[in-house]
Amino acid sequence: MMIDKLIDKIKQTGNPTVVGLDPRLEYIPDFISKKYCDKYGATLKAASKSLYAFNKKIIDEIYDIVPAVKPQIAMYERFGLYGLKAYVKTIKYAKQKGLIVIGDVKRSDIASTAEAYSDGHLGEADVFANKIKSFDHDFITLNPYLGSDGINPFLKDCKKFEKGIFVLAKTSNPNSGEIQDLITDGVPLYEKVGELISKWSEELIGENGFSEVGAVVGATHPDQAKRLREIMPHTFFLVPGYGAQGGKAEDLAVCFNKDGIGAIVNSSRGIIAAHMNDKYKESFNGEENFAKAARQAVIDMKNDLRRCI
Amino acid sequence: MMIDKLIDKIKQTGNPTVVGLDPRLEYIPDFISKKYCDKYGATLKAASKSLYAFNKKIIDEIYDIVPAVKPQIAMYERFGLYGLKAYVKTIKYAKQKGLIVIGDVKRSDIASTAEAYSDGHLGEADVFANKIKSFDHDFITLNPYLGSDGINPFLKDCKKFEKGIFVLAKTSNPNSGEIQDLITDGVPLYEKVGELISKWSEELIGENGFSEVGAVVGATHPDQAKRLREIMPHTFFLVPGYGAQGGKAEDLAVCFNKDGIGAIVNSSRGIIAAHMNDKYKESFNGEENFAKAARQAVIDMKNDLRRCI
Repeated sequence: MMIDKLIDKIKQTGNPTVVGLDPRLEYIPDFISKKYCDKYGATLKAASKSLYAFNKKIIDEIYDIVPAVKPQIAMYERFGLYGLKAYVKTIKYAKQKGLIVIGDVKRSDIASTAEAYSDGHLGEADVFANKIKSFDHDFITLNPYLGSDGINPFLKDCKKFEKGIFVLAKTSNPNSGEIQDLITDGVPLYEKVGELISKWSEELIGENGFSEVGAVVGATHPDQAKRLREIMPHTFFLVPGYGAQGGKAEDLAVCFNKDGIGAIVNSSRGIIAAHMNDKYKESFNGEENFAKAARQAVIDMKNDLRRCI
Repeated sequence: MMIDKLIDKIKQTGNPTVVGLDPRLEYIPDFISKKYCDKYGATLKAASKSLYAFNKKIIDEIYDIVPAVKPQIAMYERFGLYGLKAYVKTIKYAKQKGLIVIGDVKRSDIASTAEAYSDGHLGEADVFANKIKSFDHDFITLNPYLGSDGINPFLKDCKKFEKGIFVLAKTSNPNSGEIQDLITDGVPLYEKVGELISKWSEELIGENGFSEVGAVVGATHPDQAKRLREIMPHTFFLVPGYGAQGGKAEDLAVCFNKDGIGAIVNSSRGIIAAHMNDKYKESFNGEENFAKAARQAVIDMKNDLRRCI
């Protein structure tokens, strides 16, 4: 099962970190973007080629020390079809290098529409006489607001294709409470959502005791994460909000069990834009070293997390 | 403002119907798909070409009698980059024919990620020295679960580019109540979301008294729609669930004001697959007539709605 593959990779690397591949053109060193702008002008094609070249170099430097990457599809949809081409190539390359790919797509829809998303993102589509995979993520993220009708079609494909999902429970942003913290039956809404996720998890539990159905639980809310860990004992956590958004390693211990398993922590900017950070700028002087700075940031994050878990 | 353009088009056509362009390969007549399969085999490229050819013929038959179309992006993402190419071409062609395009994307993310989605779907992206539009929808749908952080970046682009959004309040699916109907402060969650949407609406009200910020309100819950109409007086409704999902014209009157303005009702399958429906099969005999059946289904829906509004 995919969740067991993820846990194995975390054990093997000793690193519960996922690198968020959320590139912005501002992060890309001139020697890359200049090459493509010279060739294609200031076009979407040049942007797409630059994004992919940037990601590729990052992947080359980190694939042996992290279990997974999490490309954020919005950063590619920003550039339309050209951007999505870089997204698809990034997924393919990361998988070639043995990384698990969590597509951060946060899709939400119902019934036959959710099926269509699932065909494209996790499973395969019927294309006349053929069955063809497109995005072919290992995991994707989903939004629960529409209820089981929006999740069930994905569960079917998780079973059929050995894939996984992470459903939003409590997000890491400042205003996440506007809806997620509203009190219902005496508890905040995100706990109710946690109960639903736990129910969805039940049928897809792997050999490590965790399900193909995981949850997104923000690092900026440690008390809430603790409570969600209790409500969802078989649910693996994908934790955004570490670093740039203010989440600290100390606060994350509650997401893990006594064996140090139970969650994977995302960092995006903190790793892929490490070369722009004062902390790494001097040691990784020269723009060609940007991916080496990312590698060092991964090692530092690993040590920071292991100190606390 | 885009909402005024939509209302003008509704008045001009006398038809508060939006045609859901949610094609499935099964709907596409053989004479279309055979042409492309002969040329490209049973490939994603053949699927993409077939989807676009199908949509184009539907648009040609309906553009003068409806104000808008609503392509559901999932039906295209199912086929990866090839599918999305058909999606982009469909948007472009529909706009050329004077239709307003509501992209049913139901995206959800926060802060700089939501900005990236907004750049791609409503606004424009900074591409080195240029600013470039990609999907360039007139409206898109959004999921509110992440709170204001997930909506504000889109509001900025609504203002800057005269675009609109429809935020999910109450969806039309059977299990929508699992989360949306949970009682909080004595009222169901969707009413709380309605209050938030109403707040988001306030700054972007056009000359007809409606805002660029609309709401998705399912046709399958008339009592709830009535209450939401009261909570959100300046919010235009996008209403799914008519026809195939069980929503009836009688139940929709509550979504409109006394001038018959206030909502646009979606039908997808009921229109674009009318040629497969017993009601239209005989009169529109011969597969070349599929789009004429869609036109008749639009006229029938218009009459059904006008009977009640």
